[in-house]
Amino acid sequence: MSKGIMFYDVGEQIEQFLLIKNATKGIASNGKPFLTLIFQDKSGEIEAKLWDVSDGDEKSFSPETIVKVTGEILNYRGRNQLRIRQIRPASPTDPVKLADFLETAPLSTDEMMGKITQYIFEMKNPNIQRITRHLIKKHQNAFLEYPAATKNHHEFVSGLAFHVVSMLDLAKAIAGLYPSLDKDLLYSGVILHDLGKVIELSGPISTMYTIEGNLLGHITIMVNEIGKAADELSINGEEVLILQHLVLSHHGKAEWGSPKPPLIKEAEILHYIDNLDAKMNMLDRALDRVKPGEFTERVFALDNRSFYKPTFHN
Amino acid sequence: MSKGIMFYDVGEQIEQFLLIKNATKGIASNGKPFLTLIFQDKSGEIEAKLWDVSDGDEKSFSPETIVKVTGEILNYRGRNQLRIRQIRPASPTDPVKLADFLETAPLSTDEMMGKITQYIFEMKNPNIQRITRHLIKKHQNAFLEYPAATKNHHEFVSGLAFHVVSMLDLAKAIAGLYPSLDKDLLYSGVILHDLGKVIELSGPISTMYTIEGNLLGHITIMVNEIGKAADELSINGEEVLILQHLVLSHHGKAEWGSPKPPLIKEAEILHYIDNLDAKMNMLDRALDRVKPGEFTERVFALDNRSFYKPTFHN
Amino acid sequence: MSKGIMFYDVGEQIEQFLLIKNATKGIASNGKPFLTLIFQDKSGEIEAKLWDVSDGDEKSFSPETIVKVTGEILNYRGRNQLRIRQIRPASPTDPVKLADFLETAPLSTDEMMGKITQYIFEMKNPNIQRITRHLIKKHQNAFLEYPAATKNHHEFVSGLAFHVVSMLDLAKAIAGLYPSLDKDLLYSGVILHDLGKVIELSGPISTMYTIEGNLLGHITIMVNEIGKAADELSINGEEVLILQHLVLSHHGKAEWGSPKPPLIKEAEILHYIDNLDAKMNMLDRALDRVKPGEFTERVFALDNRSFYKPTFHN
Amino acid sequence: MSKGIMFYDVGEQIEQFLLIKNATKGIASNGKPFLTLIFQDKSGEIEAKLWDVSDGDEKSFSPETIVKVTGEILNYRGRNQLRIRQIRPASPTDPVKLADFLETAPLSTDEMMGKITQYIFEMKNPNIQRITRHLIKKHQNAFLEYPAATKNHHEFVSGLAFHVVSMLDLAKAIAGLYPSLDKDLLYSGVILHDLGKVIELSGPISTMYTIEGNLLGHITIMVNEIGKAADELSINGEEVLILQHLVLSHHGKAEWGSPKPPLIKEAEILHYIDNLDAKMNMLDRALDRVKPGEFTERVFALDNRSFYKPTFHN
Amino acid sequence: MSKGIMFYDVGEQIEQFLLIKNATKGIASNGKPFLTLIFQDKSGEIEAKLWDVSDGDEKSFSPETIVKVTGEILNYRGRNQLRIRQIRPASPTDPVKLADFLETAPLSTDEMMGKITQYIFEMKNPNIQRITRHLIKKHQNAFLEYPAATKNHHEFVSGLAFHVVSMLDLAKAIAGLYPSLDKDLLYSGVILHDLGKVIELSGPISTMYTIEGNLLGHITIMVNEIGKAADELSINGEEVLILQHLVLSHHGKAEWGSPKPPLIKEAEILHYIDNLDAKMNMLDRALDRVKPGEFTERVFALDNRSFYKPTFHN
Amino acid sequence: MSKGIMFYDVGEQIEQFLLIKNATKGIASNGKPFLTLIFQDKSGEIEAKLWDVSDGDEKSFSPETIVKVTGEILNYRGRNQLRIRQIRPASPTDPVKLADFLETAPLSTDEMMGKITQYIFEMKNPNIQRITRHLIKKHQNAFLEYPAATKNHHEFVSGLAFHVVSMLDLAKAIAGLYPSLDKDLLYSGVILHDLGKVIELSGPISTMYTIEGNLLGHITIMVNEIGKAADELSINGEEVLILQHLVLSHHGKAEWGSPKPPLIKEAEILHYIDNLDAKMNMLDRALDRVKPGEFTERVFALDNRSFYKPTFHN
Repeated sequence: MSKGIMFYDVGEQIEQFLLIKNATKGIASNGKPFLTLIFQDKSGEIEAKLWDVSDGDEKSFSPETIVKVTGEILNYRGRNQLRIRQIRPASPTDPVKLADFLETAPLSTDEMMGKITQYIFEMKNPNIQRITRHLIKKHQNAFLEYPAATKNHHEFVSGLAFHVVSMLDLAKAIAGLYPSLDKDLLYSGVILHDLGKVIELSGPISTMYTIEGNLLGHITIMVNEIGKAADELSINGEEVLILQHLVLSHHGKAEWGSPKPPLIKEAEILHYIDNLDAKMNMLDRALDRVKPGEFTERVFALDNRSFYKPTFHN
Repeated sequence: MSKGIMFYDVGEQIEQFLLIKNATKGIASNGKPFLTLIFQDKSGEIEAKLWDVSDGDEKSFSPETIVKVTGEILNYRGRNQLRIRQIRPASPTDPVKLADFLETAPLSTDEMMGKITQYIFEMKNPNIQRITRHLIKKHQNAFLEYPAATKNHHEFVSGLAFHVVSMLDLAKAIAGLYPSLDKDLLYSGVILHDLGKVIELSGPISTMYTIEGNLLGHITIMVNEIGKAADELSINGEEVLILQHLVLSHHGKAEWGSPKPPLIKEAEILHYIDNLDAKMNMLDRALDRVKPGEFTERVFALDNRSFYKPTFHN
Repeated sequence: MSKGIMFYDVGEQIEQFLLIKNATKGIASNGKPFLTLIFQDKSGEIEAKLWDVSDGDEKSFSPETIVKVTGEILNYRGRNQLRIRQIRPASPTDPVKLADFLETAPLSTDEMMGKITQYIFEMKNPNIQRITRHLIKKHQNAFLEYPAATKNHHEFVSGLAFHVVSMLDLAKAIAGLYPSLDKDLLYSGVILHDLGKVIELSGPISTMYTIEGNLLGHITIMVNEIGKAADELSINGEEVLILQHLVLSHHGKAEWGSPKPPLIKEAEILHYIDNLDAKMNMLDRALDRVKPGEFTERVFALDNRSFYKPTFHN
Repeated sequence: MSKGIMFYDVGEQIEQFLLIKNATKGIASNGKPFLTLIFQDKSGEIEAKLWDVSDGDEKSFSPETIVKVTGEILNYRGRNQLRIRQIRPASPTDPVKLADFLETAPLSTDEMMGKITQYIFEMKNPNIQRITRHLIKKHQNAFLEYPAATKNHHEFVSGLAFHVVSMLDLAKAIAGLYPSLDKDLLYSGVILHDLGKVIELSGPISTMYTIEGNLLGHITIMVNEIGKAADELSINGEEVLILQHLVLSHHGKAEWGSPKPPLIKEAEILHYIDNLDAKMNMLDRALDRVKPGEFTERVFALDNRSFYKPTFHN
Repeated sequence: MSKGIMFYDVGEQIEQFLLIKNATKGIASNGKPFLTLIFQDKSGEIEAKLWDVSDGDEKSFSPETIVKVTGEILNYRGRNQLRIRQIRPASPTDPVKLADFLETAPLSTDEMMGKITQYIFEMKNPNIQRITRHLIKKHQNAFLEYPAATKNHHEFVSGLAFHVVSMLDLAKAIAGLYPSLDKDLLYSGVILHDLGKVIELSGPISTMYTIEGNLLGHITIMVNEIGKAADELSINGEEVLILQHLVLSHHGKAEWGSPKPPLIKEAEILHYIDNLDAKMNMLDRALDRVKPGEFTERVFALDNRSFYKPTFHN
Repeated sequence: MSKGIMFYDVGEQIEQFLLIKNATKGIASNGKPFLTLIFQDKSGEIEAKLWDVSDGDEKSFSPETIVKVTGEILNYRGRNQLRIRQIRPASPTDPVKLADFLETAPLSTDEMMGKITQYIFEMKNPNIQRITRHLIKKHQNAFLEYPAATKNHHEFVSGLAFHVVSMLDLAKAIAGLYPSLDKDLLYSGVILHDLGKVIELSGPISTMYTIEGNLLGHITIMVNEIGKAADELSINGEEVLILQHLVLSHHGKAEWGSPKPPLIKEAEILHYIDNLDAKMNMLDRALDRVKPGEFTERVFALDNRSFYKPTFHN
């Protein structure tokens, strides 16, 4: 198959299928309408202009349409752009489907669900185990499909579950080195910490915030869900409060969205594990796009830093 | 009755009943134990030392005991202190009771409950009205007894209810001037905003944070309570989400404990009304203790400012 | 009359008189000059491009000219734009005048002056009353015409006086609930707090900062004015200092432009009243433009928040 | 004469006259009153306890009394203390006077006034010159006596004038190197920048803030004074505004008390000169008290830093 | 052996050997000298007063002396204090030595050096390996003895080496889960990151900052050392620069002491590993001192938080 | 010669040689490529568009090419732009050379080196003198050519040396007024403080950060260089540490890039001198471009302020 759109150099010719992620109409200086299109494939996205568009074009080239494009890569103000020579919507006979253009977690949902089930199985505290199992079951479908965020890190199909699986492995490794840590709390905290995103966000594609997401946020949503789960399961132990606190505090500081900072050892460590896995994900994605001896683009969620790939890393 | 302990000047003799708020044991340089006592009455509190105490003294002069004290007011490092000449525990025949020494709201609990009931009665939106009535009923006893905070403002018996009543009157006056405001939301927001304190705090005397108060806080507690109330009353409308948001956002900013800032007009105004009433309470209490032409003590919760009472205010 | 320019939807045809607020010349990619025009009417403003302009066009379509425009509403990068089909300057016989296009306070200047006079009349302290009356007389004409700010809130003709009148009503309501407040100070503080803007700003249209406004600011300007008024009226009481302090401190904090924070009770409350009225004004204007169930545009002066209008608000 | 109180080492015997700066009464654990005395001489100050004091002692050893003390230097919690063996008030025949114990500027008031007069004489712009001369004359007596601050830097008799003279010399040197600077503005800015302190502060001894100082501050006070001076001298030029701006902005930032930052080149430089001279004064005083190879005490107004004196500085 | 001094409750009698960590002389209100002593053993420290001390006592009870004490545990202002009944210096025949009273890492220096040697042995990049081995050899003795800090975390004998060993195990576990990480860089970064502390700090007991520590700090010191090592070993590769950057940036942000933030993936992860291990150490030490259902003392270096130990942790 | 490109007004015709600083290719809405050119001469720079460019044009009009341009000055979005009518590369016979278009320090490199040599000659401490002389010799060529920064201040050929020379004169003047200052330290600190820029930056033209500049920064680079110089010269005195500290701390605060704040008197003053000279340079350049009565453009490195040139400054 053709290489990813992110990996073309300026001047290269392109002829391949792409997904329209976004289309905005404008009026050119000659008074004629044009479209600004954002194309995407699994490797990333690229902008293009389509000039002198008709009303029909506008309909044909709307978001979430797959198109066949030929053209050339340009540089415009330091960013790559695609100059379209020819463009047509994919026909039913073209051998492409939506999922071909969406980035997805590197593990299948079955594999991920299997790992999570295993971690829940290993829990020894029945209260923690039952609440965790109850909530993951309740939201299982969305949990396995949603991204972990609208942007910044794990912003791909099944990104949320993949983030959780990576964090579980990290939690296990750390708890192995610091045996005073309560593994049950840590695993449950990892599994539940971002589960509220299945209500905060609109879904796996064209992800946006829901009204509930905007007005309450995934942390408050999940704290409520834990309370309801405990009621439904008739669980009264202090574990309920502690799990609510783990979720409530996992952003670490009030100004980052946690009204209480971590006040339990496992809450503090959960915050670290979350951060570490998110950062590794962002770093790897940024560094994959540059060669040894180069700096990456600035990464907004990493304090806008530009990272260097040493020349001896190849 | 004798005047309040706060209103004595240095050098004045004192002979009256006081409540022991706090007692801490220490060892003097002569090797003998002593007690540092904090006495209180409705006007405020004062520190005193009791030297050469026996084991019996330690028991007799423990917190929440009423005592009869004679002595003299001293100045120690710029603060008044009471030098004890004689001290004895009050006997059952002494004409004093605990409530005589505790500051209380200037309205009776009946009056306050009457006003709140009236405001709930005026609500037109049945969802908002039912949730508000349900929650105030559920927590009515504690609500009418608790202080609004452990310190800073309305930190007296029934302070919470008094704060709510003052805010309701303020809400009504403001909504009268800005008719675009939704009175139902505003009244309900005022009534519920701090109701979680009946779970966050330990009670009206020697008020401390509970474990749930420490790990979740009154905002999260109340957001959960609203969710449960809606479930129990089978209410599904957007009003539930909006009321949760009003409570969630009433501290105004993430760094002040609200994970979401106000995103509804009435939420923004609720935050203002809460602040304004709390500040008026703090200002009046600080200024009551000084004469025209003087500055108050520094008020910690007002950015540590010292306020001036103009000479033409008498 | 035709509906306001802010209330057209994309795709709608337009044919109406508009005021040119701003005109900037540019050079198109074909080498020909064009104008970027900002049109305004009472409802708000909209941008448009006028292509291939002659020297004559440039003169005809200069700022503060009224024009007749036909065209169509487009969306450009998420904001509405007007695509001009025809445009001509209004002729003397067209039934339009400048004031038709400028947003103005909802009360007449006579009504506003009447209310303010009444509040001054109610003052009991002669020193406060005389200084207030003297200064409002001195600057009456500008005071009744100026906006309260160049942007953000009450940025319309007579916005300053309207802001003051709303604040006076709010001050009266609050002082009614907290009788320890000195109404004279509060009313005078409200009337004088922003009066320095008549020197800080250039006037009611195309409002800019004057050099004195840039180098001293309206707060310092007004503190000086109060000093001069007291000299001219031979008033020596502490009231002069207190009024200067009320104006000096009304922005609340050093970083917001007040070199001293409020140190008088009424100064603290004045700061609150000012904020509350400004926020109500901004919130109402932003929410007027959206339908129930929608979020407003981000409001810069409200911490860049986007507010939600509940679906049950209609 | 005996050496300064600051320069005694722990264990040394002392017998000399000292001034009582402060006296506070306390009650010892044996129930008897004692006095905490702060003694001062030109070198600095030291604390002492006077045990078992009578009512007569309290009167004899009140602030601003000169006493003859014998005793010994102790270390208490890392700070020197004086253990009193004998103490008596100075009698009229003792060869000591108040001024012997107060730190004073190293130049006489005549010398300082002479230098300032010369700088004013060198000004070429008559408006600047006349306003400067008028204001320095109006406040001359206080100006020559007051300290530059209550603490931190130049906190001694005539400290204000000495600070101004040092800054004038610095201004001259800098203007010599950067000839684009307007010397008249710079000299006038230096002379007037802190002149408001003669109203903000209570006087040269036991210096405190006046009410006007608390509610307006020396910056606002002086901006008003410049306005009045211009009125009295019938000066209308832009120089008035610029001089007001120089004073207004000389603290550099809003959070440091200047509602406008420097917006004139000379205002920016004035802020620097002020800072540089204040810092040199603080550094020299702190470093004078330590030996090469040692660190100074922490200097609060220098970000609480502790400075090192290199071993090769002797 | 007797239990640690930290584990006594108020009222318990004590009779055991303790090390004097600190002794300060004061003068009691009866005019007689006394000593404030800080005793320590492996479990922690406690304060005591020794009254009416002679000159001989002062010499006998100086810091780093071992003494035999009998007495009783008191509570003074919420902290435990030891009331001394008898005290005598340990004699040569007493079965105690300095090391008995100093907290030490739980691994022997041989074990730790063995582990570190193994990690260096596993490195594949010869430049990184040689520089790391050279520097650890150069400072080996101090490295194995020094604490990792003067307070906060790993502030015990061999704390630095123990911190490094824990971090190496953590680095290995994390690199196992994220294979894109360069293990050589990570291991070398861990070993070198705090090695400059052997020059910044004075030694393992009564640890203070050296002058070089104060004026340059361990980060700058170590960056220089890496440069010198490369010169001595004639290594020129980019590895030198990268290792210097790892050390330079390991505090993460300018305001935490790193003039450059991490700009290499392994530098970012090193910062995380350092933090995680330090926090685990602080959390475990604080939580070891409380029972389930209790909160710890506030931990300054963890944002002054007080942590909760769940009741189900026993 | 023709006037500088910065000094043309809108509408003026231009015909002169200019240097191409930057050239970026774009695609116009007609599908044809164009170039955005930044021209520069000694007075500043200006942007221009070159439409419909051929491949040959792209090569002819590349950065660091001198061209002859005729055209006209336009205003585009408030900034001047050059509309090109004709453009051709300069031929070898044209009487122009690269240096004609680059801004350069107003002193020759010989003059500057002479002054610096003289200051080094005046030093009395041989350790300080030898290290300073050694390092200036080692980097002399680059030192005399490099700018002091990539932007903000002294961003021209030989800007670094010119900044140092100005600072030396300022240091001398200040040390003359405050004789406690150690001139040797001050002069050496001035000469060395930014010398690391010859490694941090790429060179005098098209100046960028090197990899070493990005990962270590000029401060750390120079601290290392001082250490190496001391080794090579076998100098061991405390002067080495102090000079390293002067360089390390000269940015004043951790958040500005100095891991240690100034802890030596001369370090504090060096920070001031550096700032003062940089600010004078920025202020003069900004004010040179406006007329009396006008405000400058906003100056980013001066907190984005816009400065006013008084009308009486002409």
